[in-house]
Amino acid sequence: MNSILIQGAAIITMVGHDSIIEDGEIAISGDRIVSVGKRGSAPADFKAEKTINAAGMVAMPGFVNAHTHASMSLMRGYADDLPLMKWLNDRIWPLEKKLQQEDFYWGAKLSCLEMIKSGTIAFADMYFQMNEVARAVEESGMRACLSRGLIGDDSNIDVAIDESVKFIEKWHGKADGRITTMFGPHSAYTCPPDILRLVIEMAADYGVAVHIHVAEAADEVEKIKKEYNTTPVRHLDSLNLFHNPVLAAHCIYLDQEEIELLASNMVGVVHCPQCNMKLASGIAPVADLIKAGVDVALGTDGAASNNNLDMIEEMRTASFLQKVATRDAMALPAFETLKMATYNGAIAIGLGDLGLLEPGRLADLILVDLQRPHLYPRHDLVAHLVYSANAADVDTVIINGQIVMEGRKVLTMDEEEVMAQAQKCADRLVGKK
Amino acid sequence: MNSILIQGAAIITMVGHDSIIEDGEIAISGDRIVSVGKRGSAPADFKAEKTINAAGMVAMPGFVNAHTHASMSLMRGYADDLPLMKWLNDRIWPLEKKLQQEDFYWGAKLSCLEMIKSGTIAFADMYFQMNEVARAVEESGMRACLSRGLIGDDSNIDVAIDESVKFIEKWHGKADGRITTMFGPHSAYTCPPDILRLVIEMAADYGVAVHIHVAEAADEVEKIKKEYNTTPVRHLDSLNLFHNPVLAAHCIYLDQEEIELLASNMVGVVHCPQCNMKLASGIAPVADLIKAGVDVALGTDGAASNNNLDMIEEMRTASFLQKVATRDAMALPAFETLKMATYNGAIAIGLGDLGLLEPGRLADLILVDLQRPHLYPRHDLVAHLVYSANAADVDTVIINGQIVMEGRKVLTMDEEEVMAQAQKCADRLVGKK
Repeated sequence: MNSILIQGAAIITMVGHDSIIEDGEIAISGDRIVSVGKRGSAPADFKAEKTINAAGMVAMPGFVNAHTHASMSLMRGYADDLPLMKWLNDRIWPLEKKLQQEDFYWGAKLSCLEMIKSGTIAFADMYFQMNEVARAVEESGMRACLSRGLIGDDSNIDVAIDESVKFIEKWHGKADGRITTMFGPHSAYTCPPDILRLVIEMAADYGVAVHIHVAEAADEVEKIKKEYNTTPVRHLDSLNLFHNPVLAAHCIYLDQEEIELLASNMVGVVHCPQCNMKLASGIAPVADLIKAGVDVALGTDGAASNNNLDMIEEMRTASFLQKVATRDAMALPAFETLKMATYNGAIAIGLGDLGLLEPGRLADLILVDLQRPHLYPRHDLVAHLVYSANAADVDTVIINGQIVMEGRKVLTMDEEEVMAQAQKCADRLVGKK
Repeated sequence: MNSILIQGAAIITMVGHDSIIEDGEIAISGDRIVSVGKRGSAPADFKAEKTINAAGMVAMPGFVNAHTHASMSLMRGYADDLPLMKWLNDRIWPLEKKLQQEDFYWGAKLSCLEMIKSGTIAFADMYFQMNEVARAVEESGMRACLSRGLIGDDSNIDVAIDESVKFIEKWHGKADGRITTMFGPHSAYTCPPDILRLVIEMAADYGVAVHIHVAEAADEVEKIKKEYNTTPVRHLDSLNLFHNPVLAAHCIYLDQEEIELLASNMVGVVHCPQCNMKLASGIAPVADLIKAGVDVALGTDGAASNNNLDMIEEMRTASFLQKVATRDAMALPAFETLKMATYNGAIAIGLGDLGLLEPGRLADLILVDLQRPHLYPRHDLVAHLVYSANAADVDTVIINGQIVMEGRKVLTMDEEEVMAQAQKCADRLVGKK
């Protein structure tokens, strides 16, 4: 069983607000954290196969990207400065029709590479050809909660549901437990009620959650109003969606009653501020959701509408956007925002053993190098991580007790190959040679 | 005379929208660009002392940070999650009273280091002890347009004005022309009309511009209304401020008439989105300003309210914020935003010879390494720079024909020393040993 000792880092355990341990020590055995404390606090009989000198670094839980579409990285920079519906109808959906099997694999692989390099240890994904995505995740060393996307007006919805079930049966709990699954009906505006009802029942049968886009755009709200004479959240509630665990992305258009409904049903709400801003979709009422008791998680959405998968940047934007939207500079303070990007995300995607650095938890953590001019001087490390740091400050990533990046070198894949293959796929997609 | 040949980069000249030159070549002689074109386009008699192989990189004009307070980097992370007036009154101003001469120097030096490492080649600054800031700029190799901040209710306003004049006389045009100066009355709410009138007259006499905060916060608007029964912009206009060149930071609270007034007077408006969001000040009407003909520039403001000096991030935030605020995903598209951060900034701070890569212009440019997963695949390089890149992708920085950073190593200062000295100053300021 592998064992790692991390020495000298300032540890942000995320267990409580004042939980920074200076000159700390973390002992890891197998996939679990054995001890967290000051230097010298590891058990006397702990034998480290590998010792990491982390002086001048912060050790903290890795980031959980709670809503993305990994394979869409192939469309990064392909469709910018467009609103959601135009972006989907005119650019994304036509290109998606051309996607071949290898595109899903290399797109997902590119995203895993980018996510590891920016300190993300787990993500929730909804897309197609999920076997390819699962294969990329398995090889990358990451964790992921994967769902086969379902669009209800597909002519072949039966095939799609069948694939969803087969995918769940094949992959749930696989890759040393790093892969879990959900059902993935795209949204209330793309799936008719009978399909949603069926999927909700099947999710309960299989004991998995439902990953779905909710109240993302004004167009969606209008469409649901026209078709069902209600709002997206009320419509989904009428189908009993929220009686089982749900991962609900976006949740921009909500009234107070809907906020309370999401809170009382412990829905995993995922805020995706950069995507929502870029597509001009709107601003989610995150401060109100938190006030109502929702542990809001954070996601980047796909790289085609962000245009990166950088959770540090996403934290910063989430906090800043909420402050200016509520005209309250105290909204989403640094620690609360860091919690969204780590512990809240873990809970939302159903991985309660992640997100805090304490004995017995899964050993998923990152080391951030503080030896950077933009991280000096050191008044407040949590503020620095949320408001000043950038993705390239992440030095080391450990997932499930395995080192997947060290000194910014990813150990689980050939970085140059992944970039080259992704470019090759993208060139074919847009008809370049 | 030094001469540099840059070969193989994709060149974004910024001269026009479709101005990307693949496999390009830039020849630099002394402080000027000699030629820009495809590989092999340098004059036949051009002899390069140094050739840079920039294959896999983008060459583009460096960033201009058109509003900051460099020495305030010492307060990075010292006062977060607070609104502007509380941030100033309770945290920043009390700490500023304790600043010693060396603090201004090391704070500015730390900011220069951070700015170079994130691709900024020039900045506009307003603060105190500006001889120390100028010294830091001179040594760093950067360009800066510096102004001694004036707060009108200072008991020693006469001394402050005297210092401003002496500073302008001493430094304007110095450091091989890299340093220019402005007068720096802080704002309409901190400087009474007689002081502002005096400063405006002196600026005209000295032929320098005025750098000032304008309509940044709702409190300010209220204060001006109460004292002068008008708005900040109209008040400043009544004092004839806009008849001479002005660098106006923030400009959040504007009506249409004021927008037109700023446009017709060619005021250099500086948008600082991250600071405005973080302090919950509000959202500047940038799309309306551009529509009215204002070439809006971009600034980070000081690191104490941002909390970094990263112009790539600032571009992204500017574009995203404007899109969501106007509910128009086409607002501030990528090229327009890149122009704000480069050419518009150069014009705003009075350096019209910067911001475009073409023969005869000053040789201030950066190389950005594209060999990063978050910059793959390459559909649109301009979109990648604005929406996907991060500060650590900047590989090389050339200012005034001199290489100040190469392969991310800053050549003009000892990075470790700057960080250590800044920490020492900060520790003393907050009473840590």
